[in-house]
Amino acid sequence: MSQVLGIDVGGTKVAIGVSDSDGPTVTVRERLSTGPDTLARALAVARRLDPAPAAVGFSTTGVIWEGAVRLSPNVPGWDGLELPRLLAEEFGDIPVAIDNDVNAAAMAELRWGALRGVSTGLYLNLGTGLAAALVVGGRVVPGAHGAAGEIGYLQIEPGEPAFADGHVPLEERISGSGLARRASALLGREVTTAEVLSGYDGALPQVRPLVDAALRTLAMSMANLCVMLDPERLVVGGGMMGAADLIMPRLVAELERAVPFAPEVRPARFTDDAPLLGALALAHAAL
Amino acid sequence: MSQVLGIDVGGTKVAIGVSDSDGPTVTVRERLSTGPDTLARALAVARRLDPAPAAVGFSTTGVIWEGAVRLSPNVPGWDGLELPRLLAEEFGDIPVAIDNDVNAAAMAELRWGALRGVSTGLYLNLGTGLAAALVVGGRVVPGAHGAAGEIGYLQIEPGEPAFADGHVPLEERISGSGLARRASALLGREVTTAEVLSGYDGALPQVRPLVDAALRTLAMSMANLCVMLDPERLVVGGGMMGAADLIMPRLVAELERAVPFAPEVRPARFTDDAPLLGALALAHAAL
Repeated sequence: MSQVLGIDVGGTKVAIGVSDSDGPTVTVRERLSTGPDTLARALAVARRLDPAPAAVGFSTTGVIWEGAVRLSPNVPGWDGLELPRLLAEEFGDIPVAIDNDVNAAAMAELRWGALRGVSTGLYLNLGTGLAAALVVGGRVVPGAHGAAGEIGYLQIEPGEPAFADGHVPLEERISGSGLARRASALLGREVTTAEVLSGYDGALPQVRPLVDAALRTLAMSMANLCVMLDPERLVVGGGMMGAADLIMPRLVAELERAVPFAPEVRPARFTDDAPLLGALALAHAAL
Repeated sequence: MSQVLGIDVGGTKVAIGVSDSDGPTVTVRERLSTGPDTLARALAVARRLDPAPAAVGFSTTGVIWEGAVRLSPNVPGWDGLELPRLLAEEFGDIPVAIDNDVNAAAMAELRWGALRGVSTGLYLNLGTGLAAALVVGGRVVPGAHGAAGEIGYLQIEPGEPAFADGHVPLEERISGSGLARRASALLGREVTTAEVLSGYDGALPQVRPLVDAALRTLAMSMANLCVMLDPERLVVGGGMMGAADLIMPRLVAELERAVPFAPEVRPARFTDDAPLLGALALAHAAL
């Protein structure tokens, strides 16, 4: 069986892996940190792992629009990079598929995980960032500019600072990075999202109102997404799922309360590896 | 050319029409009010207009799920009616297509109007009620239970009374009926939505804060829908478009402010007739 190559460029790290079967397994993998020359370093590792893959899948932070990466300010040199052209130059006739990391993770869930067999569904990534993927007819919806599901930009209060003001309103309120920043400001010292969430029932009672408010806002936003799309299933992944016991019951209760046909809610099958597995799923789909 | 039959059952009236070409024209039409025996009376008129149509399209208030009408409390005897079975019994081998009125109106815009050629789009109905239709891959998205786009159920404030509490939060705030109810309460006398909207710049300065707040909430909600779906075009129809000069500039400005890739915004081609034309579009598609 021919081998495929997957590359995932996230906000802080790059994962590169090869897989020799159509399943959620990575035969060999390497990790890099993002920084200067992220693409050149990633491609050098990729060539070493497999100089002649049957197909390449690439998952990236941001979105791809008009031949370049957009909405990706955090990786040096990444925003505006002409990724499709550069990958075509690198890989020649080898099929290359590119999508954003959350759409790629949803592809992995559709192909091998918790979205298998779902026609209308939602995938929610609760991680450092906040994003979703919409599934219609068993396929991830790209949107007209590759930006469907970029729910970090949702507003909660009419008129609040938004995209054109340089803000990502919902992400700033409820993503991992947003929660850590708010809790650190409250406590007067740096804390991580994991500390905040694990401290909720223990060492950090002061953060409770903040976490409660964030989870109420998250639950309402997810209910609103479900009202709009009417999915049969909502799958939740990302690093904040380490606190699934805290998050999931509230989410389920709010969907039951606010959505005419509440979807089934399931944790994602894939966690840390999701975007790399997504890149491999993209590669398999491109074969 | 064979003739098709369209039937539209709305909240207060029924429109029945026949069309003999694949275009937005109604050759003969009749109207009834809803009330007792709505379906039997509508079918009697339909049989008289055309006893043997080539296909039938039926647009209805509410949604169709598991063989019956749901989310339609306002027409006597309508909620729970087994419409698909009853229409199959009535029309035998003649193809019958059923959808809710807003999805049907979006079909008419896709086939003949302002959504023609659009792959990812949104149709918004600002009428007595409030609902939308999502278009992906050039087709209206039904959702898993026929309820995609039922945006009247969107919440604005976390925890506010919602579906399970017997409320339709966004619709109560910003639909035609919601606006008329709030303005009537404010003024101490019954006013219609049209009076409220036309009085904004004239006879009813007292309603301005209420209308401003409703339009801010509407604009935010539409921006949120566009963030989620990333449509290339948003088409706005429904009775409140009589006040398009008041509504559209605010909507456009908010999309430009809050959506990373703001869609083009256009008024719908079809207004009062939209659901009946939608029923005829459904019939043509079923041919």
